Amino acid sequence: MKSDVEIAQEARMQPITKIAADLGLSEDDIEQYGKYKAKISLAAWDKMKQRPNGKLVLVSAINPTAAGEGKTTTTVGLGDAFRRLGKKAMIALREPSLGPCFGMKGGAAGGGYAQIVPMEDINLHFTGDIHAVTTAHNLLSAIIDNHIQHGNVLGIDPRRVTWRRVVDLNDRTLRHIVLGIGGKANGVPRESGFDITVASELMAILCLAKDLDDMKQRISKIIVGYTYDNQAITAGDLKVAGALTLLFKDAIKPNLVQTLEHTPAFVHGGPFANIAHGCNSIMASKFALKLSDILITEAGFGADLGAEKFIDIKCRFAGFMPDAVVLVATVRALKAHGGIAKTELTKVNQKALEHGLENLKKHIENMQKFNIPTVVAINAFPTDTEEELSFVREQCKEIGVTVTISKVWAEGGAGGIELAEQLLDMFKEPKPVRFLYDETLPVKEKISVIAKEIYGAENVNYSKAAEKTIQDLNVMSLDKTPICIAKTQYSLSDDATQIGRPKAFTMTVREIRIAAGAGFLVVITGDIMTMPGLPKKTAAEMMDIDNDGKITGLF
Amino acid sequence: MKSDVEIAQEARMQPITKIAADLGLSEDDIEQYGKYKAKISLAAWDKMKQRPNGKLVLVSAINPTAAGEGKTTTTVGLGDAFRRLGKKAMIALREPSLGPCFGMKGGAAGGGYAQIVPMEDINLHFTGDIHAVTTAHNLLSAIIDNHIQHGNVLGIDPRRVTWRRVVDLNDRTLRHIVLGIGGKANGVPRESGFDITVASELMAILCLAKDLDDMKQRISKIIVGYTYDNQAITAGDLKVAGALTLLFKDAIKPNLVQTLEHTPAFVHGGPFANIAHGCNSIMASKFALKLSDILITEAGFGADLGAEKFIDIKCRFAGFMPDAVVLVATVRALKAHGGIAKTELTKVNQKALEHGLENLKKHIENMQKFNIPTVVAINAFPTDTEEELSFVREQCKEIGVTVTISKVWAEGGAGGIELAEQLLDMFKEPKPVRFLYDETLPVKEKISVIAKEIYGAENVNYSKAAEKTIQDLNVMSLDKTPICIAKTQYSLSDDATQIGRPKAFTMTVREIRIAAGAGFLVVITGDIMTMPGLPKKTAAEMMDIDNDGKITGLF
Repeated sequence: MKSDVEIAQEARMQPITKIAADLGLSEDDIEQYGKYKAKISLAAWDKMKQRPNGKLVLVSAINPTAAGEGKTTTTVGLGDAFRRLGKKAMIALREPSLGPCFGMKGGAAGGGYAQIVPMEDINLHFTGDIHAVTTAHNLLSAIIDNHIQHGNVLGIDPRRVTWRRVVDLNDRTLRHIVLGIGGKANGVPRESGFDITVASELMAILCLAKDLDDMKQRISKIIVGYTYDNQAITAGDLKVAGALTLLFKDAIKPNLVQTLEHTPAFVHGGPFANIAHGCNSIMASKFALKLSDILITEAGFGADLGAEKFIDIKCRFAGFMPDAVVLVATVRALKAHGGIAKTELTKVNQKALEHGLENLKKHIENMQKFNIPTVVAINAFPTDTEEELSFVREQCKEIGVTVTISKVWAEGGAGGIELAEQLLDMFKEPKPVRFLYDETLPVKEKISVIAKEIYGAENVNYSKAAEKTIQDLNVMSLDKTPICIAKTQYSLSDDATQIGRPKAFTMTVREIRIAAGAGFLVVITGDIMTMPGLPKKTAAEMMDIDNDGKITGLF
Repeated sequence: MKSDVEIAQEARMQPITKIAADLGLSEDDIEQYGKYKAKISLAAWDKMKQRPNGKLVLVSAINPTAAGEGKTTTTVGLGDAFRRLGKKAMIALREPSLGPCFGMKGGAAGGGYAQIVPMEDINLHFTGDIHAVTTAHNLLSAIIDNHIQHGNVLGIDPRRVTWRRVVDLNDRTLRHIVLGIGGKANGVPRESGFDITVASELMAILCLAKDLDDMKQRISKIIVGYTYDNQAITAGDLKVAGALTLLFKDAIKPNLVQTLEHTPAFVHGGPFANIAHGCNSIMASKFALKLSDILITEAGFGADLGAEKFIDIKCRFAGFMPDAVVLVATVRALKAHGGIAKTELTKVNQKALEHGLENLKKHIENMQKFNIPTVVAINAFPTDTEEELSFVREQCKEIGVTVTISKVWAEGGAGGIELAEQLLDMFKEPKPVRFLYDETLPVKEKISVIAKEIYGAENVNYSKAAEKTIQDLNVMSLDKTPICIAKTQYSLSDDATQIGRPKAFTMTVREIRIAAGAGFLVVITGDIMTMPGLPKKTAAEMMDIDNDGKITGLF
């Protein structure tokens, strides 16, 4: 069996000018980055803005397990399937972070015969967008400390600088640091630390901004810390909203690549799905909806985090709504949710499968709360038995949800035809999708709706710190924004060990962070990691490049 | 009078495909980054490697002063002048770092009518090469701490990790930090800090590597620290030379842009000129020497650091030699070397000029030690008087050196015709340029030759630490490499206040750092800064971009 990188390297890509031309974009509408990547010029918007939006399909999943679900693979294959049916389809994905790339084996460009290419470029540096976030984030950090060093006219309390620094790597040693030591010339000592770049509020802003002006306004509202007398200090107060926006002059432009079957794909923006909202940029989506009749996109982790935030945060800001959702699951992952160890997943286990299906059923119920047409896609694995697949089919049919077996990993677009056809049927009966909550509700009410309706919690507890922040939010009038829950992806609850469908649990809100620039409140439950670590044996050790540029060990 | 950015924005650039075509490069030989930037494919080398090298002109200068000399401006204008004379000329420059860009007003893309464009892109992110250095450097840092965290099989002494971290920003607060605090899960606590990216040994390696294999071998030799029993630990020991090289898969390719007059320009690599060797990459130079009949390039700061390192380090590794050197000076800067304050420089002061000329004369003498044909270019300013210019001319003629007044800032290539013609004359009588020292000499002898012959020192003192390192070097057989002196750029001596031509001084070697990957020894004199700070009022505050992408305040 060929590896993903082998399949990708054998691909005969089309020049990106050709992919763009198929979308009606001229060479003047794009900026090439090599022969197979391009950015879309912002000026091209004027050519397309009058067009109606295409249909929007959101791909989400059950709660992830170590077995893998294949959400990106399904997204890519579904785009290819629509193309095979003669539809003008596009896909939109997030950009991969370098941290996980060097940490654990596993890319973010799909798999098998459903991949986006050039995968080596997409996984390494790509067009530099994430580096722009890193640079802008750390410039703001340097400006804050420089202000404190040079007289501190604003009266920033060094103990209450909330803006940390970032690197796009997994580096646990930077989580907690003391900086500014070494004497007067070397800054004011204080505690701080680094997060991974994709957890930066600037990444969230890049993905939510509708244009450069919107971006600048959001940046100017970022709260970086507090003064000795408790006033919030923003990036605007430090007069660098212009310079920070300038650093995004190219990063804001959507990136165009292609699938193995030459379906056009935007890959743009990559906010973490646990701490941030976890989907690709509004800019990419808004362009893609004009350039295609059907746009397939994905939202990070399970539908409890991904789909909910996609609708309640991204769609609320963007002004569009999905027309259908695809819930991806695998037989193996369902068995894992039934409590089976990873090594045993290839064996038939009817009881575990039955038990694990409860996780999928909860997500199906959740989608009904948004009133969104839903189809379940079972991503087929060679080890799945016909009995297992039939059982999952039957169970889904019993609760009245459309279900299909997707074979895009092995067959590319051909393996997604049935799924594509089911979606085309759904488009014939459009439904008005709704938000889960009204953003003007009190903070606790919004949190309660998500916790109870989506996660299935019975109660929500708040730490004293969280209670205090809620009071502050009301005073600052920053309470009328959407909620971005930071939660483990592995469980519907805030406890990663509670797989399947946990019931009668209490969710605990540990902390609330104000992302005033992004325009949401980050509600932190459990131990959320904003800087991952590297494993003992890193993926980096396997990687190599020869003198002719041939890459090995990337995946 | 128009600002640099205004002149640059009015420029009618040619498509980079046209610039490449003029060099004989097809669309397959380049990778476009937008319409006006491109990388040269490594495979293109095979097409050109049999061609003879063009002539190589090195542009250097007197010791820099606050008045500015215009070395880059002269380099750019000279390239344009050769083109006007019908010569196939190219220029090669370093890439600007973002640190100084946001710190103090001042770019690195030339000035007036002698600039490279698109200046906004070149000054901001460009094609991402510096971000690749940052990422690779910090990946190695993370790998080191991860190794220590996961059992430390190699026995790395956390107190003796010499490999720090980098950001491409001016951020004094990161100079000295304590990392790894916060308990067992968050690394092993130790002291460390950040340098600016352009001071990274990886930047030096990027600029000295001849191809990907050479780069990987150099990377594997980088010494990152020492074990508890005093053994050097390398990047190779940590098994990440392949992954780090992979991160440079695109960064190693030279970047092509153009001057305002459409002269092709490579802008590639940007090592600091005080701590590193301070010139653009060997890759760019080696391609450019094949693609042009005359290549004009520059070396950082004054000729004492720039020209000496260019010849003794870069040329030694690269296997080519310059055919002539241009020493740039201005009447204002010469007066500054005569002890005049910046505010008084526009006034005539014959005595100061006379005194300051001693600095220029020493550099002229130095060039003779390399046996290199030399021309002095006086970069004209509107405030210069005819008398002053004549005096400088006379003085140069008296000591037998060719001199010309360059007006490229105001006139573009037209202002550099005389300089270009003088160089064409010099090419008719080629001289064999020589290195200053034999790299196999003992370390102290090599340092002594540079200090006495080039700087004019009488003696060299060594700290105990430096003496110890020299002993270690001999044991490790790392002593037979070129020397990279880290010294203030403002004086021929190691004391920044000693302007003009200091005499009878003793130079003090404080520390010797082993850059085993780059392949040289960094000999540190005085207080060399590897992480600059920001001024009280930063350039960042002036910068902005509007919704149409129009940039203001960049320079």
